[in-house]
Amino acid sequence: MEFLPILTTITGIGMSIGYFTQTYKIFKRKSAIDVSLGTYLFFGVGVMVWLIYGISLNNYVLIITNVVALVGALSVIISYFLNKH
Amino acid sequence: MEFLPILTTITGIGMSIGYFTQTYKIFKRKSAIDVSLGTYLFFGVGVMVWLIYGISLNNYVLIITNVVALVGALSVIISYFLNKH
Repeated sequence: MEFLPILTTITGIGMSIGYFTQTYKIFKRKSAIDVSLGTYLFFGVGVMVWLIYGISLNNYVLIITNVVALVGALSVIISYFLNKH
Repeated sequence: MEFLPILTTITGIGMSIGYFTQTYKIFKRKSAIDVSLGTYLFFGVGVMVWLIYGISLNNYVLIITNVVALVGALSVIISYFLNKH
């Protein structure tokens, strides 16, 4: 495996941390009123399509990063519904 | 171009709409207090690395979607700083 695919995989997983910082902030503030649910629905559906694309290419960079991203997007969506007041 | 790369490109651009729904909500509410800046910093940096990966592979699916995503992430970051009270 070359350098750039490894960097991209790490980056993709790092990006997924982004979802969890939003999840953390929602739970910490017990509020999601400014957070756009639509954003994470778009991301969640999109990540699923990218995951299928990754599987079709047998590209582990796309598969690994999109599995983690899917978990992250779901964590925001679930925390949104638990704290949407 | 086959079906799945076209679907993935459309999906990637569609995901970028997700950023703009957050930007819209911030401007509409004139508040970004529940929004995690960290989320969009992770996404913004990540999208830049994916863009470089796409350029290195000469993969237009990755290039097009990540250019649009970069604009979307920047729009959230800018609107956050304009409405962070």
